[in-house]
Amino acid sequence: MLQLYLIRHGIAADRHPQTYPDDRQRPLTDAGVKKTRKIAKRLAELGLHFDHLLTSPLIRAQQTAEILVNAKLSTKPEISATLAPAGELQDWLTWYNTIPKTGNNGDVAIAVVGHQPDLGQWAEQLIWGEVREKLIVKKAGVIGVNLPDDGEIIGQSELFWLVPPRFLL
Amino acid sequence: MLQLYLIRHGIAADRHPQTYPDDRQRPLTDAGVKKTRKIAKRLAELGLHFDHLLTSPLIRAQQTAEILVNAKLSTKPEISATLAPAGELQDWLTWYNTIPKTGNNGDVAIAVVGHQPDLGQWAEQLIWGEVREKLIVKKAGVIGVNLPDDGEIIGQSELFWLVPPRFLL
Repeated sequence: MLQLYLIRHGIAADRHPQTYPDDRQRPLTDAGVKKTRKIAKRLAELGLHFDHLLTSPLIRAQQTAEILVNAKLSTKPEISATLAPAGELQDWLTWYNTIPKTGNNGDVAIAVVGHQPDLGQWAEQLIWGEVREKLIVKKAGVIGVNLPDDGEIIGQSELFWLVPPRFLL
Repeated sequence: MLQLYLIRHGIAADRHPQTYPDDRQRPLTDAGVKKTRKIAKRLAELGLHFDHLLTSPLIRAQQTAEILVNAKLSTKPEISATLAPAGELQDWLTWYNTIPKTGNNGDVAIAVVGHQPDLGQWAEQLIWGEVREKLIVKKAGVIGVNLPDDGEIIGQSELFWLVPPRFLL
């Protein structure tokens, strides 16, 4: 079994052309860091562990991934440009196709940290093969998708978890 | 805002033609009662409260609904034949169309206790307008759907929560 966790970055500073002329540099707020830490702690308490942790190169996503690592949910995150805003699922699948599909205990768990609306759209493509924008994914929210062990995964995956952050605090 | 929680009954006794010649009489097991109580407690801790609680007439569903009431998640449940196995969403909508769409604090929360694969199929019809059987709904699992305040709800609703029971214990 292969489980994919799509995790949206935590609450970040507001867009501001003077303070953050480059939107990619916008950091998590102090409250965002605190809340994301609580959520990471809860995910660890639920027994989650990720064999792979990929993150968008944007600062707010990288900070979120670091918080997950500090909660012992995974080891060092890998930066993937495919997870930047407007990244394409098909490009991410190029990476996905290179990794071994069995882990130590038989299962493999992958987490990706990224942005909306991309994460919800990726999940919809995996599950229904098309985008309908019907999944509500708040900041620091998590989507859990079971990917088939082999063969086509687009439209062939199953949704097992969607959780708003307020239910993880 | 209108929130619909679709809740699958807890773990019940195995089908057995001698002990339970009428499948509708199969009760929750002791372990099923215990686990469902824990989940109900957690739902209450998360701040949930249902203005309406409807249950399938089958014993295992009625017992689950009673546990929700005992956890103060709602008052007395109402039995609805539409929630029995193979019940039709369209028939349930006849009831839904009769209730007021605003509550004390503006929002209305409705919970229905029923069976698989029906609950997952109803949620899919509400969200995507069609059934694909791609939602994993374990016993005592919960699906949360936001229904639009007015107009068509089939294919116009949004999924905000899907939770396996192991993440509610």
